[in-house]
Amino acid sequence: MRKKHLKNLFSEISDFWSPKIIGEVNNQYVKIAKLKGEFIWHDHREEDELFFIYKGSLVMEMENETVYLEEGDFYIVPKGVRHRPVAEEECWVMLIEPKTTQHTGEVKSKLTRTVEEQR
Amino acid sequence: MRKKHLKNLFSEISDFWSPKIIGEVNNQYVKIAKLKGEFIWHDHREEDELFFIYKGSLVMEMENETVYLEEGDFYIVPKGVRHRPVAEEECWVMLIEPKTTQHTGEVKSKLTRTVEEQR
Repeated sequence: MRKKHLKNLFSEISDFWSPKIIGEVNNQYVKIAKLKGEFIWHDHREEDELFFIYKGSLVMEMENETVYLEEGDFYIVPKGVRHRPVAEEECWVMLIEPKTTQHTGEVKSKLTRTVEEQR
Repeated sequence: MRKKHLKNLFSEISDFWSPKIIGEVNNQYVKIAKLKGEFIWHDHREEDELFFIYKGSLVMEMENETVYLEEGDFYIVPKGVRHRPVAEEECWVMLIEPKTTQHTGEVKSKLTRTVEEQR
């Protein structure tokens, strides 16, 4: 494991909604992603998911509330909570989630990326 | 779980080497700490530990190598690797580690903080 610089790693990403695994810590993946537009509604039955806003802003729609996240904010979507991230402008996030986490939960979509596609 | 802003959370910390738990994700704690000076040599037998440098720089001394970390870098110290963080100037870090992680491993020191003291 070498040190990694977050900004440099973001510069290697061009596709939106396509997370990239950048590290592994205790059976969790650390991922980064660039987001723009609306994602799809989904949940992760058994996995919490941490969002850290590195750049830009993100609206996290959930069934019972909507949370507005700005640069430097972090938010943990608890397991089982249906959510839909929406980025009106381009947003860069760091994610922490278990290796078992499916990108779009049990929903299949053209946006869905397998773990292999996240490497 | 409400959203939290990293910079604001750092502003609530004044002691060095005294991590504060700021979130919980899949049996891991997210913590922040301000570091200055030399810590003690220790390891965590079963737990990886992620360091993200939010501000400043940090030298991570390990038995077989020394890694120099700058703002925006992250580094994962694998389980079982003896390490000693050294901050020549004040450094602010975010940590991710399992709930079971002991602050100074099996070493006891006046710097050791229990999990209760990290709340």
